[in-house]
Amino acid sequence: MNPLSDATPKLSQAELAKLLREFMPADSVLTEIESQRPFECDGLAIYTEIPLVVALPETVEQVQQIMKVCHQHHFPVVARGAGTGLSAGALPNKHGVLLSLSKLKNILEIDPLARTARLQPGVRNLAISEAAEPYGLYYAPDPSSQIACSIGGNIAENAGGVHCLKYGLTVHNVLALELITVEGDRLQIGGSRLDSSGPDLLAVLNGSEGLLGVVTEITVKLLPRPEQVEVIMAGFDNIDQAGNAVSEVIAAGIIPGGLEMMDKLAIQAAEAFAHAGYPVDAEALLLCEVDGTTAEIEHNIATISTLFKKLGATSIQVSENADDRARMWKGRKSAFPAIGRISADYYCMDGTIPRSKIAEVLQKIHALATRHELRVANVFHAGDGNLHPLILFDSSVAGEIERAEILGGEILVACVESGGSITGEHGVGLEKIAQMHDQFSTAELTQFHALKAAFDPLGQLNPGKGIPVLKNCQEYRSLSPLGSSHSHHVHNHG
Amino acid sequence: MNPLSDATPKLSQAELAKLLREFMPADSVLTEIESQRPFECDGLAIYTEIPLVVALPETVEQVQQIMKVCHQHHFPVVARGAGTGLSAGALPNKHGVLLSLSKLKNILEIDPLARTARLQPGVRNLAISEAAEPYGLYYAPDPSSQIACSIGGNIAENAGGVHCLKYGLTVHNVLALELITVEGDRLQIGGSRLDSSGPDLLAVLNGSEGLLGVVTEITVKLLPRPEQVEVIMAGFDNIDQAGNAVSEVIAAGIIPGGLEMMDKLAIQAAEAFAHAGYPVDAEALLLCEVDGTTAEIEHNIATISTLFKKLGATSIQVSENADDRARMWKGRKSAFPAIGRISADYYCMDGTIPRSKIAEVLQKIHALATRHELRVANVFHAGDGNLHPLILFDSSVAGEIERAEILGGEILVACVESGGSITGEHGVGLEKIAQMHDQFSTAELTQFHALKAAFDPLGQLNPGKGIPVLKNCQEYRSLSPLGSSHSHHVHNHG
Repeated sequence: MNPLSDATPKLSQAELAKLLREFMPADSVLTEIESQRPFECDGLAIYTEIPLVVALPETVEQVQQIMKVCHQHHFPVVARGAGTGLSAGALPNKHGVLLSLSKLKNILEIDPLARTARLQPGVRNLAISEAAEPYGLYYAPDPSSQIACSIGGNIAENAGGVHCLKYGLTVHNVLALELITVEGDRLQIGGSRLDSSGPDLLAVLNGSEGLLGVVTEITVKLLPRPEQVEVIMAGFDNIDQAGNAVSEVIAAGIIPGGLEMMDKLAIQAAEAFAHAGYPVDAEALLLCEVDGTTAEIEHNIATISTLFKKLGATSIQVSENADDRARMWKGRKSAFPAIGRISADYYCMDGTIPRSKIAEVLQKIHALATRHELRVANVFHAGDGNLHPLILFDSSVAGEIERAEILGGEILVACVESGGSITGEHGVGLEKIAQMHDQFSTAELTQFHALKAAFDPLGQLNPGKGIPVLKNCQEYRSLSPLGSSHSHHVHNHG
Repeated sequence: MNPLSDATPKLSQAELAKLLREFMPADSVLTEIESQRPFECDGLAIYTEIPLVVALPETVEQVQQIMKVCHQHHFPVVARGAGTGLSAGALPNKHGVLLSLSKLKNILEIDPLARTARLQPGVRNLAISEAAEPYGLYYAPDPSSQIACSIGGNIAENAGGVHCLKYGLTVHNVLALELITVEGDRLQIGGSRLDSSGPDLLAVLNGSEGLLGVVTEITVKLLPRPEQVEVIMAGFDNIDQAGNAVSEVIAAGIIPGGLEMMDKLAIQAAEAFAHAGYPVDAEALLLCEVDGTTAEIEHNIATISTLFKKLGATSIQVSENADDRARMWKGRKSAFPAIGRISADYYCMDGTIPRSKIAEVLQKIHALATRHELRVANVFHAGDGNLHPLILFDSSVAGEIERAEILGGEILVACVESGGSITGEHGVGLEKIAQMHDQFSTAELTQFHALKAAFDPLGQLNPGKGIPVLKNCQEYRSLSPLGSSHSHHVHNHG
């Protein structure tokens, strides 16, 4: 049924490269392993693979032609943005084309009146806000990798960031997309208006991890910079109190710009690294950013401070200027490299839980880690219940990486059991494909496969990622059985 | 290819009714024309049809069983909420089951801490806010029909309302759905968390007009009631100035709770009906609601008033209390019945345009109306560019209804040409299916059909609605060719 399950490619690498070079410069079609090496993995570097060919199109028309060639000859296609993803979603397929969109990096239009930006997929996240800055505008979603990550990749993973509690994930900030289908057709999805006629494909494409098509143009919303921003930092003697404080802030009707939590191990590592003035004896730290008019901020800071004190905060600091704010955020923003200094390796997980279950799930994670004799530091978007447990391990110690992977899986199951999900903003990719069975029923996974087939009937787009194979459906079996064809190297990805 | 294109049903009405009565009370399966009559149309009463059978399930399990029977025997299924839709989306199929969800009307849970409500599809929109009231919460989307319309129907049409500028359409306020597939499977879609793993089917189901499955449970967000609400009302001497004022309010960084516009004919009709104190000489009226804390409101009212004056407002009124607000809104809210008093019949259109094109499109609508010798009153959600032109006609005058329908189609084309869409919040249904070709390319429509087939391979769910038949694809041809099998009666639906 599935032509891609035929292990013998119809064309050789040389034949495929020749076809692509008919419409692309020779040096935009990479076939040598040395030039392909930079594309062997994304930010989850424990998985590596060399593709058959790397293609670096410079125009949308070239993307269309690449898709047509691959469709005709049944080659898999894996699209890649900046390669900062953390779930191996951009891991190449060894039988297919790695389609890098890095050369499509033009900001096509900034419309300050409509407050929109029209972008090619390779535009860096931070570059959007830089281009909008002269108009007092910015692009809200701010994943940690925002200096490097691209808007195309943000769409593939439906990226979030510190401010998504108030301003939403990528999906809430994208107005329109241009999609190249697996057949090479060019579709316009969405538009600069509130609703779309016809089925709303915009949200389904956000977070679709390259399984449904290739996005070649994006229109995003720009927001006016808030008049003022301040940060309240509070230490707590136990996780329970901090978890309650998160729920109570939201229950008070305040939507902070960001509401982040760190546990003791993360606080201590961050403080040693960044000297942010964190209370190193606290069991939990909350960083709460409020933005708006001066009047709003005064009102909200008063409310939140009162609430934190009532709930047992042992220390409270409120920023008084931009330097204070920068210092408080510096610890949080450097938490990952800070952990890198106290551990040979670490593995960053990404799950979501209901806000009301924060303390309960953190205690469960702690118990699971103890059982596997591993340490876990927690740094996360508490306001929207998006956990990022960092599992500390040493790959030079036999068995530690395997234990870290098992612990990671168990943490995700704990998230699902609490009513949450196995991914908040990093995607399923290859990493979490097994856990999809923990979260979804067979009927639900079958519906996902049907949706995938509606865009990609032959299963050519990023095969083996995102949606797991169903045990009883041989026709859904993807090209690369998981875990069998990928090299397994350990990198410190801190 | 399509079993439904076989005009001969496999079972008779009596046989189908017998199968359904095996698991439902006899009086929940209606087969007599007298009892079916109330279901013959929705709010767009110019289209009527009698279904083969009306089914009124009382449990989700009955919905599943109905779907299984219909799937097995290839009967079309048209789901129906409260029947207030305005695009004939709930028009019955004469060969199939009209599935009324009106008996599934329980509020299953209000969770004031998580700020969510779990609902059956037949719960009325306004009943959600009434149930949330004791907790100081409410459900934001407020279509004009909110006293009567159901949350299930709101999802089918992705309903909006006066406040969707600030608080979003239904899709932005729904967290999770339970979907019964055409095969009778029960799927959980979304959840009480920011992101979902797996493809995001939640948005695609919102606004899917009964084409993809039957929604049997809905979890919505509840919002805290704003501390204070006030209204600014401003009259303008010309549409251009009012249109600019709308853009400038948004450009000033203010997001009003609602920002509505009425033209002269609508102002005069509403004033004569409701005595709202509207300036009857004005060419355009803006009603701008601001909500939030007292400090925010003061700040925003001052900014907006200054701006309206600068842009040429000839009169400005600011509400000082709840009575003022109620009076100002009364005119807007009774605009439709007010038009009903000055015209024998009217036809309510629904399109969207970019905010910056308001004046240009209104002038075009006026020119088109003049050419067809008809009057058009405009009452609309200006803030999000959602037009509701009301075409006035008299069905007792030969040719007027046909001219009204032609004018309606031309208005939608004008919306698309301005960069907008053919529906803002009423859906495509049967009414606008021809205009889908004006808005979408064949490649895009083909993708919509593929999506539909991923949920409904045999085309059983609400056939002939939402997505138009493609000229070159006989296999997509739906059961009821448009316009041929439906009675065409004229009602005054004011």
